[in-house]
Amino acid sequence: MSQPPYFVGIDVGGQTIKGGVVDDLGHALSSVSVPTEAAKGQEHGLGQMCEAVRRAVATSGLRLDDIAAIGVATPGTMDIPAGIILDPPNLRPWKNVPVRQHIADTFGKPTAFQNDANAAAFGEYWVGAGREAKSMVLFTLGTGIGCGIIIHDQVLEGQHSHGAEVGHIIVEATNGRMCGCGQPGHLEAYASATAVVKRTREALEQPGLTSCLSEVLKVQGDLTARDVFDAARDGDSLAQRIVEETAYYLAVGAVCMMHTIDPDMVVFGGGMIAAGEEFLDRIRHHIRRMAFPVPAERTAVCYAKLGTDAGFIGAAACARQLYQRLAAAK
Amino acid sequence: MSQPPYFVGIDVGGQTIKGGVVDDLGHALSSVSVPTEAAKGQEHGLGQMCEAVRRAVATSGLRLDDIAAIGVATPGTMDIPAGIILDPPNLRPWKNVPVRQHIADTFGKPTAFQNDANAAAFGEYWVGAGREAKSMVLFTLGTGIGCGIIIHDQVLEGQHSHGAEVGHIIVEATNGRMCGCGQPGHLEAYASATAVVKRTREALEQPGLTSCLSEVLKVQGDLTARDVFDAARDGDSLAQRIVEETAYYLAVGAVCMMHTIDPDMVVFGGGMIAAGEEFLDRIRHHIRRMAFPVPAERTAVCYAKLGTDAGFIGAAACARQLYQRLAAAK
Repeated sequence: MSQPPYFVGIDVGGQTIKGGVVDDLGHALSSVSVPTEAAKGQEHGLGQMCEAVRRAVATSGLRLDDIAAIGVATPGTMDIPAGIILDPPNLRPWKNVPVRQHIADTFGKPTAFQNDANAAAFGEYWVGAGREAKSMVLFTLGTGIGCGIIIHDQVLEGQHSHGAEVGHIIVEATNGRMCGCGQPGHLEAYASATAVVKRTREALEQPGLTSCLSEVLKVQGDLTARDVFDAARDGDSLAQRIVEETAYYLAVGAVCMMHTIDPDMVVFGGGMIAAGEEFLDRIRHHIRRMAFPVPAERTAVCYAKLGTDAGFIGAAACARQLYQRLAAAK
Repeated sequence: MSQPPYFVGIDVGGQTIKGGVVDDLGHALSSVSVPTEAAKGQEHGLGQMCEAVRRAVATSGLRLDDIAAIGVATPGTMDIPAGIILDPPNLRPWKNVPVRQHIADTFGKPTAFQNDANAAAFGEYWVGAGREAKSMVLFTLGTGIGCGIIIHDQVLEGQHSHGAEVGHIIVEATNGRMCGCGQPGHLEAYASATAVVKRTREALEQPGLTSCLSEVLKVQGDLTARDVFDAARDGDSLAQRIVEETAYYLAVGAVCMMHTIDPDMVVFGGGMIAAGEEFLDRIRHHIRRMAFPVPAERTAVCYAKLGTDAGFIGAAACARQLYQRLAAAK
């Protein structure tokens, strides 16, 4: 191949498969979406993944022959070295799906397989917020808290494909809030977007409290984390308290990683970063206050840059790493 | 060098420098001790380190010419890549001590430099409890909680030499006990040997409690963690509660690492492991209950095997790794 290599990355989510062709410098030449339709079963799902690969290539203006390798990122649970999705809560009723083999066989290309949160971190590390970092921890704040850890160009996968499940570290060992996973005290139970809403609704149920969010809840029938951050910006004191506590817990998570991984950079991504610089400054304030002096001073704390493209770009980064390894082994 | 290489490891502690010659398979040919005498200043301390190296070699029956490389482990704070101790609380009044350069210049040997807790973990990983592991987290339970993390033969040093400071992850984000480092809620404040004694003494001050430890305290004027574990074994209910809580908090720390590093093996070392298998089983019980199913089932949880030799053997392991890298680069 005399031209520089191109890679396809796809990011399989509960609702949508995002994909694109990415060049050797990390520029996306295309960005496509295909519905996952998980409920139709895993055979159908594998077909949709292949469709995403084909559309990503077609939209980029390249041909399949131009593609050096493919990367696939999926939610867990999974066996990363085996290339298999095991029993994914977000892709029911799938079980033991041999993703990597299927994609490799279908397209005849070297295929990399990675956890979606890890892939997003690898994408940000490659061409996003972490471009200058040597090691990085990414927290993706959404329904849950996804996490990916990159140390010197390597994704921390863990020995049982459970590396970087940092939403599920225990930050309140006594009387902890229940996490979606069924265990108490996890970071995710305090600081995900879902947790922000849940904590707000509980606070609103306490007698004697006044908050503009009561009215929002009445009118909309529900609340979003966005509503809470907006109300805080408008001066609502209950919302401000919730936002401040959320910043504190995210700082707790960051400090735990700074005292374990000690990365160059801690990055926050996901929908909740729409809360803006002021929120990030509150997180930074608590980190500086709580971390050891040297990491407190030197660890960069910032927002992610690739938005929802991080997953497929990171999947492409995994494909690129595989391609480079195969080339080096020749 | 036609014979297999030998390495010297030394482990610099607040009171004592331990050292020994270690062969290529991790067997210690000698084990010596030299007083650190930190208060006499860092020049003197560097001299004591050199003395430890010389005695280790002399006692082994080898000559200095037989030594391929030297490894030095010290407490932090430190700059590991630079080979410098910065501002060590346990080695006052030392400041900015160029340890690696001094040892390398004195003996004319390649010299590796590592944090003492990291070195202990690397020793256990090489020829101790973690011999079969591919990745390992070691908690050393003493005055504080030291920690070292090894992933695929690499010590996790961190970007600012603060990797694996897991005694200082936050496990009680609300109303946490104060840690020796001055921050609240750290694992070390709940589960070090010192914390066991402190929590027991506080409990004994509560009115209406009866415990055989009140008498022990009166007679001895002080308590040790050993006293508490002994009393628990003898059926003292207050001591049993403290031991059970300690096992719980150590499990919390282990689970946080299993959901971050996801190692093959979690190892507990330090004086407190004299508490025996029953204590380890309590830790395992809480880990299995709290960790995700796959790591809960597959992660080995055990006691360290090298005792207080782990540090110098691990320092020798660092020397060996350096020697192998230099050989590979030739």
